Amino acid sequence: MIATASQPTLTAFDWVPDFARGLVRDIRVRWALEELGLTYDVEVLNAFGAKPDGYVQRQPFEQVPAFADGDVELFESGAILLYLADRHPGLLPTDDAAAWTARCWVMAAYSSVESFINRLNSYDIFNADKPWAKDAREPAVALVNQKLKRVADALGDKDWLVGDFSVADIAMICVLENLRHSGLVTQQPVLVDYLARGKSRPAYGRALSGQLANFTGSPPAGWQK
Amino acid sequence: MIATASQPTLTAFDWVPDFARGLVRDIRVRWALEELGLTYDVEVLNAFGAKPDGYVQRQPFEQVPAFADGDVELFESGAILLYLADRHPGLLPTDDAAAWTARCWVMAAYSSVESFINRLNSYDIFNADKPWAKDAREPAVALVNQKLKRVADALGDKDWLVGDFSVADIAMICVLENLRHSGLVTQQPVLVDYLARGKSRPAYGRALSGQLANFTGSPPAGWQK
Repeated sequence: MIATASQPTLTAFDWVPDFARGLVRDIRVRWALEELGLTYDVEVLNAFGAKPDGYVQRQPFEQVPAFADGDVELFESGAILLYLADRHPGLLPTDDAAAWTARCWVMAAYSSVESFINRLNSYDIFNADKPWAKDAREPAVALVNQKLKRVADALGDKDWLVGDFSVADIAMICVLENLRHSGLVTQQPVLVDYLARGKSRPAYGRALSGQLANFTGSPPAGWQK
Repeated sequence: MIATASQPTLTAFDWVPDFARGLVRDIRVRWALEELGLTYDVEVLNAFGAKPDGYVQRQPFEQVPAFADGDVELFESGAILLYLADRHPGLLPTDDAAAWTARCWVMAAYSSVESFINRLNSYDIFNADKPWAKDAREPAVALVNQKLKRVADALGDKDWLVGDFSVADIAMICVLENLRHSGLVTQQPVLVDYLARGKSRPAYGRALSGQLANFTGSPPAGWQK
């Protein structure tokens, strides 16, 4: 077998319910790759069935994306974003201190914002039929609103979180997009504009189209919409 | 004014309730600094009162730790861990691919494990008096147990997540320690041993002592234990 130049590979799903379309975390990595103008391969997996042999070694939580670039194998979309931004110019400020601020915002998107959004979504989506979900939702909404205000305040009248568009914006915009069902972002006009600004980038459009185009599979047996 | 060599500074709290003692996130940064043998200054803040002027520019969520090292200013303990591990040898594997695996585990600790632990703690600690908390707790426990099993499986019979002790272990052990009230970790003997192994390191002991020693303040007016 003749070795050929390899390009990065990431994993994605072949089908997810409507509420998750455009939100599965491989979109974050696709967006970064598209911004950098890199070509890549996508390995499409069944979200609900058994994963390929050995997948748990590539992705310890058996989620997507897993990512490979030569002999570097990565999991966790946030870490993959940091890797791509380190390896290729264009997604981090050139100033070292500002680059670290951008990395802080990547971590903030995942740890200080998304964790609260996921909690809210656990009530609104995954446990919506439970009698306790409505009450549990209240303090979760308050926390999400508090985090949204913090991000909006930090953004202020800037276009992007740190200098030019960076990996911090990919992380934060994709995290905030997880609130699309809730309408909560509309209470922060700064963030409405920020999301629109990010999502109008051609690279985001290509990333979204790419994820959606892979949903050629079928729901699992017995799936109730 | 004569410039003197500066050392890193981090912020911490002057008082927190018992359930949070040893868990406030500055301990993660202290642990890394102690492992590296670096000296540092601690700026102690009131957790419940107004923060110093301009603190929100240093820490957009007005939490701790904020961190400064020369002209690099950071927030988010996970990002600070990555920064310290980049700047100083000793907390990441020397092999580049393995170092990226360790960074993935830092991100996994925050994003794929801690977010679920925090959700559980929101029922067990912050909303324990609510009539819905007991029901809401059930699916959250199942998710935490699933994540614990994943981490235990990944650890297997290794001492540390990636090669020698690394920043990945600081992140993961501190995240898992947030379950100390719940007893859930005891169901994964691999993780019980892992936590004991990490917490027996002298640097962890110094980090813990340092955090506890700063709790010289008083609870806010009207505090009910």
